[in-house]
Amino acid sequence: MNPSTQVHSQTLVGSPKSSYAPLQNDTFIRACLRQATTHTPVWLMRQAGRYLPEYKATRAKAGSFMGLATNTDYATEVTLQPLERYPLDAAILFSDILTVPDAMGLGLSFALGEGPKFAHTVRDEAAVAKLAVPDMAKLRYVFDAVTSIRKALNGRVPLIGFSGSPWTLACYMVEGAGSDDYRMVKTMLYQRPDLMHRMLAINADAVAAYLNCQIEAGAQAVMIFDSWGGVLADGAFQAFSLAYTERVLAQVKKEHNGVRIPRIVFTKGGGLWLKDMAPLDCDVLGLDWTVNLGAARALVGENSSGAKAKALQGNIDPNVLFANPDQIATEVQRVLASFGAPHQVPLDAPDATGPTHIFNLGHGISQYTPPDHVAALVQAVHEVSKSMRKSANPAA
Amino acid sequence: MNPSTQVHSQTLVGSPKSSYAPLQNDTFIRACLRQATTHTPVWLMRQAGRYLPEYKATRAKAGSFMGLATNTDYATEVTLQPLERYPLDAAILFSDILTVPDAMGLGLSFALGEGPKFAHTVRDEAAVAKLAVPDMAKLRYVFDAVTSIRKALNGRVPLIGFSGSPWTLACYMVEGAGSDDYRMVKTMLYQRPDLMHRMLAINADAVAAYLNCQIEAGAQAVMIFDSWGGVLADGAFQAFSLAYTERVLAQVKKEHNGVRIPRIVFTKGGGLWLKDMAPLDCDVLGLDWTVNLGAARALVGENSSGAKAKALQGNIDPNVLFANPDQIATEVQRVLASFGAPHQVPLDAPDATGPTHIFNLGHGISQYTPPDHVAALVQAVHEVSKSMRKSANPAA
Repeated sequence: MNPSTQVHSQTLVGSPKSSYAPLQNDTFIRACLRQATTHTPVWLMRQAGRYLPEYKATRAKAGSFMGLATNTDYATEVTLQPLERYPLDAAILFSDILTVPDAMGLGLSFALGEGPKFAHTVRDEAAVAKLAVPDMAKLRYVFDAVTSIRKALNGRVPLIGFSGSPWTLACYMVEGAGSDDYRMVKTMLYQRPDLMHRMLAINADAVAAYLNCQIEAGAQAVMIFDSWGGVLADGAFQAFSLAYTERVLAQVKKEHNGVRIPRIVFTKGGGLWLKDMAPLDCDVLGLDWTVNLGAARALVGENSSGAKAKALQGNIDPNVLFANPDQIATEVQRVLASFGAPHQVPLDAPDATGPTHIFNLGHGISQYTPPDHVAALVQAVHEVSKSMRKSANPAA
Repeated sequence: MNPSTQVHSQTLVGSPKSSYAPLQNDTFIRACLRQATTHTPVWLMRQAGRYLPEYKATRAKAGSFMGLATNTDYATEVTLQPLERYPLDAAILFSDILTVPDAMGLGLSFALGEGPKFAHTVRDEAAVAKLAVPDMAKLRYVFDAVTSIRKALNGRVPLIGFSGSPWTLACYMVEGAGSDDYRMVKTMLYQRPDLMHRMLAINADAVAAYLNCQIEAGAQAVMIFDSWGGVLADGAFQAFSLAYTERVLAQVKKEHNGVRIPRIVFTKGGGLWLKDMAPLDCDVLGLDWTVNLGAARALVGENSSGAKAKALQGNIDPNVLFANPDQIATEVQRVLASFGAPHQVPLDAPDATGPTHIFNLGHGISQYTPPDHVAALVQAVHEVSKSMRKSANPAA
C-alpha cells in the first residue's frame, strides 16, 4: 500500500467523536512527523491571496481585508481557491497574523494597498499594564472559519492553523504598523527590557490559547510565524523571540482526540540560529531561501546531541516564480537536491522516521506572481521528488 | 612604545613622494592588519549624517544630497564633523554607494526624505548592452574629495574609501530605486542569468577602477558595501554577489606607494555565508548584528584551512543607540565580550598578527540617533576594550 496516500484513520482522523471526513492525502502530515512519503509535499505561504483573480473577486465582495477574514463563508471560499487550481498537499487557514493583538483591543485595520495598522500602540508602561490575554470569544470568527474550512475540505488535504509569534506580534504592537528599522520596538527592548518581557509573556500565553482553540476547531497542524525574529541581534533573538516561542510550544496541544497535531516554527531570517532552535519542542522548522537545506538537515534534520530531529520546510525564493516554467523547474530541482536523498519507506517499518522535507517558498508569495507559474512549480515539485525517490530506490 | 599610537611611518605613510602628514592614530589600520592595539578601534557606518545638526546645516547650504557629495569643500566638511565630536579611530569618505552607476549615465537623484532614484533602469538586453565601465574622469569629484579630506585630516586618523558591491549596484540599476522584494532584479537573475552576469562583470571592473582611483587620491583603506547580498538565496549569493566581489578584489591595489591598503568586505545579512567568504582576498569582514562575533572569529578570524584569517568589523545593533548611556555601555561590553579575549602584543614581536576586532554598528546609524548617545558608545568601546586588555595581561 502506498504510505503517502493511505488513510491513517487511527492516527489522523481522530476519535469516533470527530465528524470530519477521513483524510485522503496525508503526505504533508506524514512529512511533518518525519515519515516517508512517495513525493515531497508542497504548499505555499500566502497561497490564498492577491495573485489569484478569484481571490480579488471575493475580496471585492467582502469590501475590506478584515471583512474577508471575519466572514466565515468568504474565509472558507478563499482558503479553498488555490486547491481548485493546484494539487497542493495542504491548506492553510485564511486569516492574518495580527488577529490576537486586535482582540487585545489595539484596533487592527488594513488601508487599501497598505499593510496592517493598529489604532493604538503599546510604547510605555501604562500601555503594557493594560495588556492581557484576550477573551478567546473575540476570536470566534477565526475558529468558526477553521471549522467551516475543515468541513469544506472534506478530507482532501489537512488544514494548517497559525499565529504570529510573540515577538512578531510585539513588533506590530509597538510600531503600530510595519517598519523598516524596528526603531520603536527595539528602543523598548534595549531601554526597558522588563516591559518587553512582560508584553512577550502575555503574547505567548495568548498565542498558545489561540492555537489551542484553532486545534479544537479543526486545525490539523499549527504554524508559528516569527516573521520578524530575523531582525534581532544575536543574543536578543534567543532572549526575546525564541524563549517566547518555547513558552507557546509548552502550552500548545500536541494531539487532539488522539491525533498528533504537528507544530511548525518559521523564523524568517533565522538561519544563523538553527542550532539554538534544535531543542525547540516542535516537529518542523521553516526556512527561508538564504539557508542551505543540506546544511540545515545536517544540523537539525537528524537526531543530534539529544535534540528532537526536525522536518524541514521551505525554501525557494518566491521571486523564482517570475522566471519561465522551465527555469522554475530547474530551481525546484536545485532546492530538492540541496535537501539531499529523500527518506525512503523501509518495507518492514512503514512509519519509521527519517529526514523529511516539505516544499514551500521561503516567504509569502508575491501578489504579482503569474498563476500558471505556480502550477509549474507544484508540478515540478511532485514530479522531480517522485523521480528522486525512484532513483534512490529503483526496486520500489 | 605604545604599538597602537606609534607612527609606523615606513608602512603607513608611504614613500617620500607622499605630501600627507604622518598618521597619528594607526589603531584602525593595525587592527585591519590583525596587529595588536591598546584599544579596539571604533568608527560608525554613516557617521557623517543626518543625526548631526551640523550635517543638516551643511546639507541645507548645499541644497541637495548630490550637491553635497559633489562639492569638495562640503564633502570634506561633513566627513570631518563627527571627528570633532567623538574620538573616532577612522574617517570615511562622505559619498554615496551609487556614484558609479550615475557615472554610467543612469541619472542618480535623491528626492528629499526619500532614497536614491535612477532616471534610467537596466532591465533588458538592450539596456545591458549599453553599459560600460565609465570614464573615471566623471567621478573626479569623488577623488578630489578624497584628497581634500585626507589633507584636512592632517594625519589624525586614516581615511576609508568605499564603493557599493557589483551586486548591490545591480539591484539599484535594475530596480531604479530601493525595493522591498527585489522582484525586478531577481526576475532578471532567474530569467536571464546571462544578462545579470554581463552586468555584474562590468560593475566589478568599474568598482575596481573606482576604488583604485580613490586609493591613488589618498584613501588609506577601502570598503566594499554589499548592502543587498543578504537578500539572495543560498547558491545565488555565491554566484551573483561573492564571485563579483572576488573579481573586484583581484583588481584592487593592495598597497600604494609601498603602504598596505587594507580591504574590507561587508555583506549585510551575509552571516550564513562566512565560510564561503573565508577564501576572499581581503583583510577585514564586516558583520551585522545577527552574527555572533565569537562564532565568526572561530570560523574566519583565525588561520584555518589555508584561508587567510580576517579581522572582524561590527556589529552592534544601531538601535542600541536609542537606549540610555548606561545601557549602551552594557551592550558595548556584551559585543566586545562576544568577540572574546583581545589579541595582545607579544613583547618580542610587536607586529605579530592575531584575531582583531574593529568596533562598528551592524548597519548605518539612524538619523534619529541622539548625538550624545554616540559619545557614550565611543567612550564605552575605548574604556571597556582597554580594560579587557589589562585584565587579559595585567603585567602590560
